[in-house]
Amino acid sequence: MSAPKKVVLAYSGGLDTSIILKWLQTEYGCEVVTFTADLGQGEELEPARKKAELLGIAPENIYIEDVREEFVRDFVFPMFRANAVYEGLYLLGTSIARPLISKRLVEIAAETGADAVAHGATGKGNDQVRFELAAYALNPDIKVIAPWREWDLSSRTRLLEFAEQNQIPIAKDKRGEAPFSVDANLLHTSSEGKVLEDPADEAPDYVYQRTVNPEDAPNEPEFVEIGFERGDAVSINGEAMSPATILTKLNELGGKHGCGRLDLVEGRFVGMKSRGVYETPGGTLLLEAHRGIESITLDRGAAHLKDELMPKYAELIYNGFWYSPEREMLQALIDKSQEHVTGTVRLKLYKGLARTVARWSDHSLYSEAHVTFEEDAGAYDQKDAAGFIQLNALRLKLIAARDKRLKK
Amino acid sequence: MSAPKKVVLAYSGGLDTSIILKWLQTEYGCEVVTFTADLGQGEELEPARKKAELLGIAPENIYIEDVREEFVRDFVFPMFRANAVYEGLYLLGTSIARPLISKRLVEIAAETGADAVAHGATGKGNDQVRFELAAYALNPDIKVIAPWREWDLSSRTRLLEFAEQNQIPIAKDKRGEAPFSVDANLLHTSSEGKVLEDPADEAPDYVYQRTVNPEDAPNEPEFVEIGFERGDAVSINGEAMSPATILTKLNELGGKHGCGRLDLVEGRFVGMKSRGVYETPGGTLLLEAHRGIESITLDRGAAHLKDELMPKYAELIYNGFWYSPEREMLQALIDKSQEHVTGTVRLKLYKGLARTVARWSDHSLYSEAHVTFEEDAGAYDQKDAAGFIQLNALRLKLIAARDKRLKK
Amino acid sequence: MSAPKKVVLAYSGGLDTSIILKWLQTEYGCEVVTFTADLGQGEELEPARKKAELLGIAPENIYIEDVREEFVRDFVFPMFRANAVYEGLYLLGTSIARPLISKRLVEIAAETGADAVAHGATGKGNDQVRFELAAYALNPDIKVIAPWREWDLSSRTRLLEFAEQNQIPIAKDKRGEAPFSVDANLLHTSSEGKVLEDPADEAPDYVYQRTVNPEDAPNEPEFVEIGFERGDAVSINGEAMSPATILTKLNELGGKHGCGRLDLVEGRFVGMKSRGVYETPGGTLLLEAHRGIESITLDRGAAHLKDELMPKYAELIYNGFWYSPEREMLQALIDKSQEHVTGTVRLKLYKGLARTVARWSDHSLYSEAHVTFEEDAGAYDQKDAAGFIQLNALRLKLIAARDKRLKK
Amino acid sequence: MSAPKKVVLAYSGGLDTSIILKWLQTEYGCEVVTFTADLGQGEELEPARKKAELLGIAPENIYIEDVREEFVRDFVFPMFRANAVYEGLYLLGTSIARPLISKRLVEIAAETGADAVAHGATGKGNDQVRFELAAYALNPDIKVIAPWREWDLSSRTRLLEFAEQNQIPIAKDKRGEAPFSVDANLLHTSSEGKVLEDPADEAPDYVYQRTVNPEDAPNEPEFVEIGFERGDAVSINGEAMSPATILTKLNELGGKHGCGRLDLVEGRFVGMKSRGVYETPGGTLLLEAHRGIESITLDRGAAHLKDELMPKYAELIYNGFWYSPEREMLQALIDKSQEHVTGTVRLKLYKGLARTVARWSDHSLYSEAHVTFEEDAGAYDQKDAAGFIQLNALRLKLIAARDKRLKK
Repeated sequence: MSAPKKVVLAYSGGLDTSIILKWLQTEYGCEVVTFTADLGQGEELEPARKKAELLGIAPENIYIEDVREEFVRDFVFPMFRANAVYEGLYLLGTSIARPLISKRLVEIAAETGADAVAHGATGKGNDQVRFELAAYALNPDIKVIAPWREWDLSSRTRLLEFAEQNQIPIAKDKRGEAPFSVDANLLHTSSEGKVLEDPADEAPDYVYQRTVNPEDAPNEPEFVEIGFERGDAVSINGEAMSPATILTKLNELGGKHGCGRLDLVEGRFVGMKSRGVYETPGGTLLLEAHRGIESITLDRGAAHLKDELMPKYAELIYNGFWYSPEREMLQALIDKSQEHVTGTVRLKLYKGLARTVARWSDHSLYSEAHVTFEEDAGAYDQKDAAGFIQLNALRLKLIAARDKRLKK
Repeated sequence: MSAPKKVVLAYSGGLDTSIILKWLQTEYGCEVVTFTADLGQGEELEPARKKAELLGIAPENIYIEDVREEFVRDFVFPMFRANAVYEGLYLLGTSIARPLISKRLVEIAAETGADAVAHGATGKGNDQVRFELAAYALNPDIKVIAPWREWDLSSRTRLLEFAEQNQIPIAKDKRGEAPFSVDANLLHTSSEGKVLEDPADEAPDYVYQRTVNPEDAPNEPEFVEIGFERGDAVSINGEAMSPATILTKLNELGGKHGCGRLDLVEGRFVGMKSRGVYETPGGTLLLEAHRGIESITLDRGAAHLKDELMPKYAELIYNGFWYSPEREMLQALIDKSQEHVTGTVRLKLYKGLARTVARWSDHSLYSEAHVTFEEDAGAYDQKDAAGFIQLNALRLKLIAARDKRLKK
Repeated sequence: MSAPKKVVLAYSGGLDTSIILKWLQTEYGCEVVTFTADLGQGEELEPARKKAELLGIAPENIYIEDVREEFVRDFVFPMFRANAVYEGLYLLGTSIARPLISKRLVEIAAETGADAVAHGATGKGNDQVRFELAAYALNPDIKVIAPWREWDLSSRTRLLEFAEQNQIPIAKDKRGEAPFSVDANLLHTSSEGKVLEDPADEAPDYVYQRTVNPEDAPNEPEFVEIGFERGDAVSINGEAMSPATILTKLNELGGKHGCGRLDLVEGRFVGMKSRGVYETPGGTLLLEAHRGIESITLDRGAAHLKDELMPKYAELIYNGFWYSPEREMLQALIDKSQEHVTGTVRLKLYKGLARTVARWSDHSLYSEAHVTFEEDAGAYDQKDAAGFIQLNALRLKLIAARDKRLKK
Repeated sequence: MSAPKKVVLAYSGGLDTSIILKWLQTEYGCEVVTFTADLGQGEELEPARKKAELLGIAPENIYIEDVREEFVRDFVFPMFRANAVYEGLYLLGTSIARPLISKRLVEIAAETGADAVAHGATGKGNDQVRFELAAYALNPDIKVIAPWREWDLSSRTRLLEFAEQNQIPIAKDKRGEAPFSVDANLLHTSSEGKVLEDPADEAPDYVYQRTVNPEDAPNEPEFVEIGFERGDAVSINGEAMSPATILTKLNELGGKHGCGRLDLVEGRFVGMKSRGVYETPGGTLLLEAHRGIESITLDRGAAHLKDELMPKYAELIYNGFWYSPEREMLQALIDKSQEHVTGTVRLKLYKGLARTVARWSDHSLYSEAHVTFEEDAGAYDQKDAAGFIQLNALRLKLIAARDKRLKK
């Protein structure tokens, strides 16, 4: 790979990506463009602008954008149509944000004539894979620079030395090492590493940042009604809202009631297992409600096919294959299924629990006329079940008869 | 089908199966053998014996058995090895009991020279299918009698008339209709029908019979440690126990803390949707803990394959295909995966929540040496990730290059 | 089911459906509308009109239509996009025609105010299921009459008696029983029953009707080039043609060279196994060529996902679920994959063999620059493979290390 | 990776692996152990011994073994139980041999105290992955050396120079470059590269080495009967034979009749597409016959589950994951299905075609009594089909009714 001339860097404004910025300038002598996105991580963005300017980035090379609506509408919601959960538990909060960031990096590279993009993910994790696969899928000729895999700043001490040598301001609370590593966006907050590294130790309560401890949640349950159209949430308690507004509101509700905490060990794409603590308050409510509305509006055949393909779909997102033909094919299948996933679900929130307690829809396939224990006025002929069972049993009978015959 | 001469009836001792017993005697003039099983449903069995005798069943034709250990060991535990959940939520508590009952019915038929078996499931539900597919798979020549599909006792009034005409004692509380229908065993209690028929109405609290309302659960969390060997629970808080004892104990714990309540709408095999309220206190803890121990002992490739096949496996059990070649094939695959699923999980129970908070095992695949944020002493070479990503990206680059070429 | 007043009958003009026509008139006293379709079965349709008139059907109630283009365009081609093969071998020639017939039956019922449709499939086969599921999916209130399941004309003798009593003309060659049963359309001819009933006996050569015996095929191979656009064949040897024309032409080529003969035992949806002899000359060429063009234009991830889902898709068509949400979801996925399946394949036909020998496309993903054994000018860095392998191996190493540790 | 001290090399005796041998000695100064296996590639092994001796390998460090029986019994046959085919066509002849070679390399390393193994596969192909994943899975601490990824002998000229400088004898016919690259074993011969690099050019006839051109095959068909027990071939024309003997015999038959030629483009695990010409004469017969015996002895549910999982299983073998938990889990499932796959199949071989024409078994599930077009004496009640269809249709009717309702 020839040396890059101009690099678009995914820049948070924090110490680590500031060091990367400087390192790119000094190591490659290349022009740096910074991209800072508001994905709902809950941090001010203007300080990032100031810091970039301080590090010598020209104003026209500083990109700061609020991408929250795009994030929820084009990434989070399509994923929730699939009820995607990785390894039975993880709601993919970090995984789903990476392709959006890469997409903007590549687009900004095209706009600014940059030949490379750079990110601050380490060589041990999944995020490097997600950033890079997305970048290459969107521009096969882009260069990707991953300083953590290249440089020799392998200890905290050396990083801080480099920062000092290069006049990078270090906030006082960054002198010491954080007791764990955090990633956040509108969908979730993840924590991992250090104090969390032994999965036999319970995660200390201070790790959780976005949800109250269920023990401290209100003693009274709260009900919330989520309206859906074609698989996507469109309203809360009857009020129509934009995608990002809905997720923000669900985060408040879920966070208040201690919903969406997870402590798990997962299998990374790079081959090792890691332990993470995740908080996905709004997403947890959304998943429960989406399953609830599907339960009355989605046909059994459709639902079971979705369920069988979900783990594969979740794995693709987890592994960084958002921009791959097979994810897009699965999305076409999933979206096709959602045409009638329209209606309302009532959830009950209480001390960390979020349970569907009622659901209704004009598109419902539930037929009280058929299922009733009462006289059904001919809606269903119980005698049909005899033939249904006989023909379903036929192949099993033929096996049993064969086995009987052979035993003789 | 020629008329049966001797029938083994799945007999609970209740009013409905007593009516069936009498109806079999009068309609077919056949000898009746009763089979009453203790599956942990929480009812005395001796009254069933008395009632059978009262209805003229010869003592040698009355079979009363405690099958709880067999139930948990040979049915519940193998199913939990798969993390089986139907339509994302239902833990299959009713489905998994039916094949065991059929197995004993068919065995007793062989022992007593009966040519038929009979059950009390209606023509609208899944249970008829489960009973009958299992019976036919175990004896292709057995006759199965399903009175609810045959007789004309289609209203409560006519049933009670029949009972009175035939001197069947009617408990006072059975005069009126129950407000919903119940099935119970050691794994779960299900409620459905009548007051539950409108899925837009929240289930009234009196429907729940086995778990306290989370709002009434203790204000203090409780921790429990579940030990596993080869995928099956073998101990609680360090104390080794038999399968049924473990499930009983987990039921107590889960029930006390309000865990395992579900209110859902599901797709029945016979084609309609139905609404059910399920309580699976112990099973909910078991599933969470099993996922927890798998998270450190099961390889990612193995775990993902299991996840992809789980919906199919759950569907087979739900639909009544326990005794089918494909369920047995999947079981072989699942059991193979469990060879190292050995270790301990600590759960925290609180107000309906049951969450894994710690897990450890001699068989763990988790490697702190690899995952650490600290210096890893060469356990993992971050530069390997570059090649890993390049080759995973290659096909995506070739697609992107093709698309670029075609756009020109 | 109340008696039908007006019935649309799938009518071939042959003896069996003529008997059904009469039986519907006499048994139900209902008005009959006949629908005779040219699906490419190779029979004149005008005799069917004459015979319907003879049996008293009013001219406005006689529908005769050439549906060959619709058949190939909307049913055969979408199915071939999936490379659909049932149980590894069967190209679904009969299965795919049934939904189209049902669709027209239901549409004609709506046009003519009929409340029922009728077909001539027996109660043992798959076709009854396919006809009826399609009809119910398109009109949930339609009645379906399946005379073979209802009447008592269960022997050849009784059928002929009924025909004679009702002045139905019987062709001389229909007096005796045919030695096997045949279904044909533009995609295939199937033969089953009677002389074919013992799968241990080789099918006699006279069973084959549409393909020459490979031993009698030309001694010189022939080459044919099939052009594809977005997954569908659009030209032969450079000449653009309509869908039905292409399939007709491929049938001629395949038939001449003895391609597409199959002799197999398959699992019917109704539970038994049956033996069939199939001839699919054009379809066999089409499948081979479609796989050939996909091999260079379809990404590996896309192709493998398609391959994994194909058996399910084929099963749905075989079982009669063409008009089901899950078939439509899978179709959306498959169609999405075909966007670049455009190019040309050359086949070599010889003595029953049809093999791809060359393929090329502007949309090709094949990169000689990458794969070459020669110097590749940096297209591919072999060192990347080391990291790729290391990370793919990591989880296997962790397992091996665990096993080693436990053995100590 | 520290330098290896003693290396076990997969050694063919040919020029390339002789150069590797020398390179290992000179580059790493390490002791070399050679392993030469007879996998049925059709070459003498003793010249390899001589050449190894000539290159200075101590006699006790030369391992020459006939592993044909192990190869077929423990690798080829288990794979054929799955009907494994990669991307619809490729019978995995190269893929399945690699794990066996790695297994012996690792075992010999343990016996001889070697700390590394080495192979002669390039950095572009799948074989390096297969060799190395297998080696690491069997010994997590082994070192693997892949000279083609390390050295700078990147052109034919430099290789020959190295050979001359090191006194490695060069056969005259190796001076020029081979027009394509070949791999062979008892299951297949593959050819790729150079003259085959353009997939738009038909492969020249001289590429095929193991099968006659169908045009030159006998003008008379030949029949062969293959006997199976529990999924594995055990006899030919009634004569019991060992696994390798059976495959050898089938190769003779298939080769004589021009069976098993393939010309395809496949997706490599490393991300690029490549074109290969494969000859699998015996395997082609075996696959056809295995499908034939399964068609009468394997239940539909079992067969369809196998078909759905086959692509995944084939992909695992292709990608080198033979020694992985998921392949072993799938094998457990597949082997479970084969318990009754016992019986005999008659194939007809003619001019490249190998077709099942008859099959029979004591374990057959085919029931003429059920399927017959004649009077079936009550084996099957056609009226059952009505109920079967009604309940299968119910969910489709509910969808259609919903759609109708919404349209109003």
